[in-house]
Amino acid sequence: MSETAYDPQNIFGKILRGEVPCHKVYEDAHVIAFMDVMPQADGHTLVVPKVPSRNLLDADPVVLGHLTAAVQKVARAAKAAFSADGVAVYQYNEAAAGQTVFHLHVHVLPRHDGVAPRRHAGGMADQKMLAEHAERIRAALQG
Amino acid sequence: MSETAYDPQNIFGKILRGEVPCHKVYEDAHVIAFMDVMPQADGHTLVVPKVPSRNLLDADPVVLGHLTAAVQKVARAAKAAFSADGVAVYQYNEAAAGQTVFHLHVHVLPRHDGVAPRRHAGGMADQKMLAEHAERIRAALQG
Repeated sequence: MSETAYDPQNIFGKILRGEVPCHKVYEDAHVIAFMDVMPQADGHTLVVPKVPSRNLLDADPVVLGHLTAAVQKVARAAKAAFSADGVAVYQYNEAAAGQTVFHLHVHVLPRHDGVAPRRHAGGMADQKMLAEHAERIRAALQG
Repeated sequence: MSETAYDPQNIFGKILRGEVPCHKVYEDAHVIAFMDVMPQADGHTLVVPKVPSRNLLDADPVVLGHLTAAVQKVARAAKAAFSADGVAVYQYNEAAAGQTVFHLHVHVLPRHDGVAPRRHAGGMADQKMLAEHAERIRAALQG
């Protein structure tokens, strides 16, 4: 697989096609946002453009504009929903940078003073907890 | 200082006004990009919108569009300039998330397989090295 190839069988492609479920917090014409199943912090959300690209490096700049606008909305809502002190945004390109799913995505992590992010590994989070966290962010988006 | 206030005396505000020098790699009508003086990896570049905002949370979505388009350009160029295997993009909002300068900015880090990023602390990097790294990224942007 070359660095520029997009494989539609990646897990986010499957989520976008409705083949795999997710805990969705936001959707518009251009993006969806859903809970990371291995959250590095409570409320860890992924924002994913619907138009496929492998990562930032091969993305359409117009798609990036829509993506970043959605990241801002989700960041504000996740911060409010978890009464966070800040929000970290991570975006990884290629495995050397930490990318594990090769469909462009942005990590949004609510952060609290003195609490380090957890490592992005280990098992899946509890589904009930993820559903409850998604509901909190959805409520904040509407508030 | 409230979380929503913008203090024009921050160091990036001074760089934007030309009051403090920087190792610039890119400039357009909307953003400038320059070397981080405490690089977490060789080629660590900051992309900064000219329109002031404290961070992502209070930014104008139109500004974010311009910012992200420039981040993509710089990410491609920094990856090429340092023959990197990937590129990490970090964007921190508020101190709890790691923000230390309160003018919106995006970190672009070339990443190599098996090389962890350094901590963002300690002393300033060698100015000659930063100047040389900036020149490499400028050349890649033109290439």
